[in-house]
Amino acid sequence: MALSDEQKEEIAAQRSQTNQTRRATVQGMEDHLYTAYPVLDHGFIRVIDYMGDDNAITQAARVSYGKGTKSVQNDEGLIRYLMRHWHSTPFEMCEIKLHVKLPVFVARQWIRHRTANVNEYSARYSILDREFYIPAPEHINAQSVINNQGRGQVLEGEEAARVLDILKTDSERSYDNYESMISDEGQNGLARELARMNLPANIYTQWYWKVDLHNLFHFLRLRADAHAQYEIRVYANEICKIVADWVPFAYRAFEDYRLGGAQMSATALDCVRRMLKGEAVTQENSGMSKGEWREFEGAIK
Amino acid sequence: MALSDEQKEEIAAQRSQTNQTRRATVQGMEDHLYTAYPVLDHGFIRVIDYMGDDNAITQAARVSYGKGTKSVQNDEGLIRYLMRHWHSTPFEMCEIKLHVKLPVFVARQWIRHRTANVNEYSARYSILDREFYIPAPEHINAQSVINNQGRGQVLEGEEAARVLDILKTDSERSYDNYESMISDEGQNGLARELARMNLPANIYTQWYWKVDLHNLFHFLRLRADAHAQYEIRVYANEICKIVADWVPFAYRAFEDYRLGGAQMSATALDCVRRMLKGEAVTQENSGMSKGEWREFEGAIK
Amino acid sequence: MALSDEQKEEIAAQRSQTNQTRRATVQGMEDHLYTAYPVLDHGFIRVIDYMGDDNAITQAARVSYGKGTKSVQNDEGLIRYLMRHWHSTPFEMCEIKLHVKLPVFVARQWIRHRTANVNEYSARYSILDREFYIPAPEHINAQSVINNQGRGQVLEGEEAARVLDILKTDSERSYDNYESMISDEGQNGLARELARMNLPANIYTQWYWKVDLHNLFHFLRLRADAHAQYEIRVYANEICKIVADWVPFAYRAFEDYRLGGAQMSATALDCVRRMLKGEAVTQENSGMSKGEWREFEGAIK
Amino acid sequence: MALSDEQKEEIAAQRSQTNQTRRATVQGMEDHLYTAYPVLDHGFIRVIDYMGDDNAITQAARVSYGKGTKSVQNDEGLIRYLMRHWHSTPFEMCEIKLHVKLPVFVARQWIRHRTANVNEYSARYSILDREFYIPAPEHINAQSVINNQGRGQVLEGEEAARVLDILKTDSERSYDNYESMISDEGQNGLARELARMNLPANIYTQWYWKVDLHNLFHFLRLRADAHAQYEIRVYANEICKIVADWVPFAYRAFEDYRLGGAQMSATALDCVRRMLKGEAVTQENSGMSKGEWREFEGAIK
Repeated sequence: MALSDEQKEEIAAQRSQTNQTRRATVQGMEDHLYTAYPVLDHGFIRVIDYMGDDNAITQAARVSYGKGTKSVQNDEGLIRYLMRHWHSTPFEMCEIKLHVKLPVFVARQWIRHRTANVNEYSARYSILDREFYIPAPEHINAQSVINNQGRGQVLEGEEAARVLDILKTDSERSYDNYESMISDEGQNGLARELARMNLPANIYTQWYWKVDLHNLFHFLRLRADAHAQYEIRVYANEICKIVADWVPFAYRAFEDYRLGGAQMSATALDCVRRMLKGEAVTQENSGMSKGEWREFEGAIK
Repeated sequence: MALSDEQKEEIAAQRSQTNQTRRATVQGMEDHLYTAYPVLDHGFIRVIDYMGDDNAITQAARVSYGKGTKSVQNDEGLIRYLMRHWHSTPFEMCEIKLHVKLPVFVARQWIRHRTANVNEYSARYSILDREFYIPAPEHINAQSVINNQGRGQVLEGEEAARVLDILKTDSERSYDNYESMISDEGQNGLARELARMNLPANIYTQWYWKVDLHNLFHFLRLRADAHAQYEIRVYANEICKIVADWVPFAYRAFEDYRLGGAQMSATALDCVRRMLKGEAVTQENSGMSKGEWREFEGAIK
Repeated sequence: MALSDEQKEEIAAQRSQTNQTRRATVQGMEDHLYTAYPVLDHGFIRVIDYMGDDNAITQAARVSYGKGTKSVQNDEGLIRYLMRHWHSTPFEMCEIKLHVKLPVFVARQWIRHRTANVNEYSARYSILDREFYIPAPEHINAQSVINNQGRGQVLEGEEAARVLDILKTDSERSYDNYESMISDEGQNGLARELARMNLPANIYTQWYWKVDLHNLFHFLRLRADAHAQYEIRVYANEICKIVADWVPFAYRAFEDYRLGGAQMSATALDCVRRMLKGEAVTQENSGMSKGEWREFEGAIK
Repeated sequence: MALSDEQKEEIAAQRSQTNQTRRATVQGMEDHLYTAYPVLDHGFIRVIDYMGDDNAITQAARVSYGKGTKSVQNDEGLIRYLMRHWHSTPFEMCEIKLHVKLPVFVARQWIRHRTANVNEYSARYSILDREFYIPAPEHINAQSVINNQGRGQVLEGEEAARVLDILKTDSERSYDNYESMISDEGQNGLARELARMNLPANIYTQWYWKVDLHNLFHFLRLRADAHAQYEIRVYANEICKIVADWVPFAYRAFEDYRLGGAQMSATALDCVRRMLKGEAVTQENSGMSKGEWREFEGAIK
């Protein structure tokens, strides 16, 4: 990630501002505000704004006149109860706004989370920068042979070199041609809304993304998961660190009940019961498919 | 609106807190924070939190690194442009959280605005207060004879007195019976989730309601409109005053383009063109129904 | 549930219509169409329309040109895989439209499911019918002493009789007064939008409710659950029967993975592992609160 | 658009199926079902399913037991009334499902309409086809000199030839390299989820897209508008034709009140009033900016 001097100054100016407020304030988030945390080779995540804290969750759950805190212990207990019983609305009372720079193919996965507010940099209106995601060698993997929608072992030697070379060369060429098409030197210059179609999916875009905590947790559960594509997972992981500082009680509950937890089917629960009674349960007599059984074993072994 | 001493103290405690923040802060909203503004006989609106300001709208529209302000004039121009061309996402970058106390029949209209976050006081869990909306005499109207879904002239004399008496007496009786059913003195006490069914729709409930500015404007356009039922319109009007202090540029644009504006059909635009050419256009030769023509005349006369 | 003769004729007319269509059609749903299935004392559920079938789920998941079915077995396997891995979008490809008659206090819970389309009978525009929910004696329960938001034992004897009497008497009186206020005989007649505020929450309302299968499953998971209030659970149960006939593969997957399953926290999974290794795990050494432990035991014992 | 023989057969098989149904059926839509209507050079739109008709809109608005039709004239009048007064929920009672093939840069605009259900062809799981959008010569335009986010005059001669050549050459090369990277002949083969990042935004993707009529109208208002990018507008125009056959009353109301209409600001209404009184209103004394005035003149002249 290379910020221009102008961008660094703008960020510094934001960080140096200080205001008095009556609103709920979280020191951990104040420390994060505006700083660009690098993700991938040119991407970043910056917290632009936030609303609420752990207390805002319990305050709304209780529809209180004031802070509505009975005791800190009590608050964490209530937050765990709400998370455990899928009460989503109190978590919707916290909101976060991020500025994210990310490759287009990551943006295309990310945008599928519909319950969020997005303003993306417009390539109809503006010219995109010459910045492309080129994976680090340890993240260039073969197609998985187990999972049709994942990656397997790391590529090595000549094959890896060939891939890297293609990605770099094609990115540069496509951008050279993008530039030459929109240039108005000695020609009219192609409309930006058309020229952009020549750019590959590893070019970086950026957006402001605003989401409530409930929907953010949903995003994180799917995207910080081991099955998510590496290139979006690193963004999710970076956000997890920020959320842990923002709403520590809620984040701990999320880690316990969602990230580290597992949904058991009726069949799986029945198998657990049989196993606890000493029965030898195998995939064959479990009532589960091979895939299910593998995931079940992964959860309890 | 009668707040208990405890509630007043809780609100005062919230108002007395002061924190340092790097976030965008609006003095007009800081002044409003937590104060309960009375609406109807027992209702209120309190701002609990807010995110963003006018600048947050242009900053997101430009996907800026810093504040992204070129000039104040420039910012207002951009906001007007965004509003005029139905760009909704930049307005979604501002968020407000309100604590509202309101009659159940108003809450039932309000909740139809789905793109918002709500935590309502639970009458399964808690006991509702003995507070009912009884309209002021000047708001007790007859069924409209023009509009099937509205009210006409103010009722007077005996009829008005009878209505008032019924509303008061039935409210009190239903609450007496509610209390006697849930009481556990000398009996088991009916479950709250059942007892509440005896309470009429003019009982007050309360909730935390959080919404982004775009969806709030949509709510206000429909509910601050002259055709909205009086009892929800007064809430919308109160919110309008708060929004005008929060995001003055956006609110002015909203007033001009939405609240005070009108949607013209193709037929209506054609009539305007004909009238500007000097043609005498009447309902009969306008191509509009009587209802449309009446609304059209209301807009241009 | 007492349908008027006119209503019965309208329903019969709908049932007798028959059209040729190229669309996916499910015989089980054709049989259900338009019939009013009674729920509670005056409520009902009627299927008005549906879109899609089990095959529509796999077809969309595969983005097929045709039906996209490889084999029936294959399709059920894919549906189970999608459900297990929280792929929600293929289930959104099925849609159902219901006509529901239900008490207002049930409607107030139901409407909290925001991702649905609703048209409710307007009490601003029309006059409500004299129909109130009066619980059957076996559903009049005391407040629960364990769960603050639930009901305990059935009330008996005099206490039950008193409750029943109050509910009946207050309902009738409030409706008598509602009628007398809106009457225009010898008076102007109060506006309907005002008069309705005198009616209690056990009066029946009705609406058209349209929802996709993913969001319907979410509704059913929460509302067909044992912790849901009885009066909404009976609607959810009735819908479950209909869905089982509509999309049998998807419904079976839903039953296994959601309705009959359980979410295990990281802590709970750890306890299962310890127990399977022979350790004696108790609430005290489990790392769970009492409430969690009780739920955990409920799931595995 | 070149469908493979297999695809043609699958579509023919769908079209040849015929079922009896009690559901509302529209002959105009039955004729469209499954047929792939070409859009751009390789794209298409196919209707996969639909729910409801004009009558479903009035039926829901009236919460009827049967069809709820009073008279055809009456129904169209009600639909016009609902559209004019922004009653959105009755229009949500109709639903359509489309299969769309479209360039990725069009898909990226399209997906911003969040209130819809989407299943996109997965380039993590599957291999994309070698199909790229190459604009026809008459749609290769220069950047607009008036509107920063639009296109101006058509490019000609050498410049146009250069653009076409670049788009074609870069597309082919990027696809050659995509293929060579994922190939497992003599190498492991790069994971598909990585290889796709080399493909430019003019490659075609496809999805199933399901939306209700209200949200579809919103999409069409923005995307069938003259200011929308040509490449998405042609999809919107094609959908308009289909909707006109599906719900003719609603579509006519949409054309009159939305597509052909205009939103007038309070300031603009005031200018109309002044002009009708004979005053010479110019931009200078209008209270509007130059941009607003230009749009205002466009609407009334």
